[in-house]
Amino acid sequence: MNIKYPNGKKVSNNKITHINSRGMLFESELNIANEYYRTNNLAIIYKKPTPIQVVKVSYPERSKAKIVEAYYKTPSTTDYNGIYKTKYIDFEAKQTDNASFSFKHIFAHQIIHLKKIDEQGGIAFVIIYFKILNQVFIIDIKDFYREYTNNLHDGPKSIKACNITNIGGVEVLLNKLPIVDYLKAVDSLYFNQKSK
Amino acid sequence: MNIKYPNGKKVSNNKITHINSRGMLFESELNIANEYYRTNNLAIIYKKPTPIQVVKVSYPERSKAKIVEAYYKTPSTTDYNGIYKTKYIDFEAKQTDNASFSFKHIFAHQIIHLKKIDEQGGIAFVIIYFKILNQVFIIDIKDFYREYTNNLHDGPKSIKACNITNIGGVEVLLNKLPIVDYLKAVDSLYFNQKSK
Repeated sequence: MNIKYPNGKKVSNNKITHINSRGMLFESELNIANEYYRTNNLAIIYKKPTPIQVVKVSYPERSKAKIVEAYYKTPSTTDYNGIYKTKYIDFEAKQTDNASFSFKHIFAHQIIHLKKIDEQGGIAFVIIYFKILNQVFIIDIKDFYREYTNNLHDGPKSIKACNITNIGGVEVLLNKLPIVDYLKAVDSLYFNQKSK
Repeated sequence: MNIKYPNGKKVSNNKITHINSRGMLFESELNIANEYYRTNNLAIIYKKPTPIQVVKVSYPERSKAKIVEAYYKTPSTTDYNGIYKTKYIDFEAKQTDNASFSFKHIFAHQIIHLKKIDEQGGIAFVIIYFKILNQVFIIDIKDFYREYTNNLHDGPKSIKACNITNIGGVEVLLNKLPIVDYLKAVDSLYFNQKSK
């Protein structure tokens, strides 16, 4: 997904009270949801900082190092992790302009990372925002991995939004605050609680 | 702790087969330990990227964005987190040149973060390397928090290495590979298993 706020700057609430025709800023919405969950002691989930390779630093003032040459790096893992209902939770967030999600938009090593989290007993999924449909879904890594593997064996190269619930995914029903109240879908998928 | 490898570069093993008189590179040793744990499917724990505020990016080539002005930011949380024995694990790593650890070397918001992780049912601790003694200890956040709170009420301003086991901490006995095999101390502290 596009990195809209590499400095982690918080978006003021009035900017996002409704979803306009250009779609919401998905990453910002996830950050707002996480902040809401933390404030209410529901979960402690953070976006990891964007990994940056620092090449050159100058010291114009003694107190503050200024980075003058650096590059964005490929993340080793996923965007988000933390703790929810005593469980380790880890997910990758993606958005697409289409009504289907192409597997070329996710790194193989991120899928493997999520698979390993699942094997260790953690909650691991991919959350996808389909901008054109204004729909968000979460797909458990086991389901996602099965589809991904099919794709490597000449199966479909993407996951269609309209097919996600058939392959085991759950829709994140958009709420008021937070808009992307994804823990409700997590409850439904991992804690056998109805998503309302 | 000092950021010796902001680019996350791996240190080759032959550099660290023994701890020389200048002490080990603690962060590198923790990264090596985590890599060992991941390779052996014992735990999935990563160091989070150093948070950097990007101010200016230039595009000398179409393919690669070059960051030309950026600054190190204060981390929101801690250095390391992940999953171990199905549990969420989160810790802050510190090193000191003295035989005691001064509370001024840890941010209050990091202590609060670890306290919240503990309240959510996760494993949360501080790991400290006392360079001069060549000793490493882990202190559960509950014990650390108690000492920290005493310090705010005119108690001792630091934790002495020689006193850590008395306040509930556990020594990480230095091993061959990985040298800082801290999960043994975690077993002893959180899973009632003898540290050997």
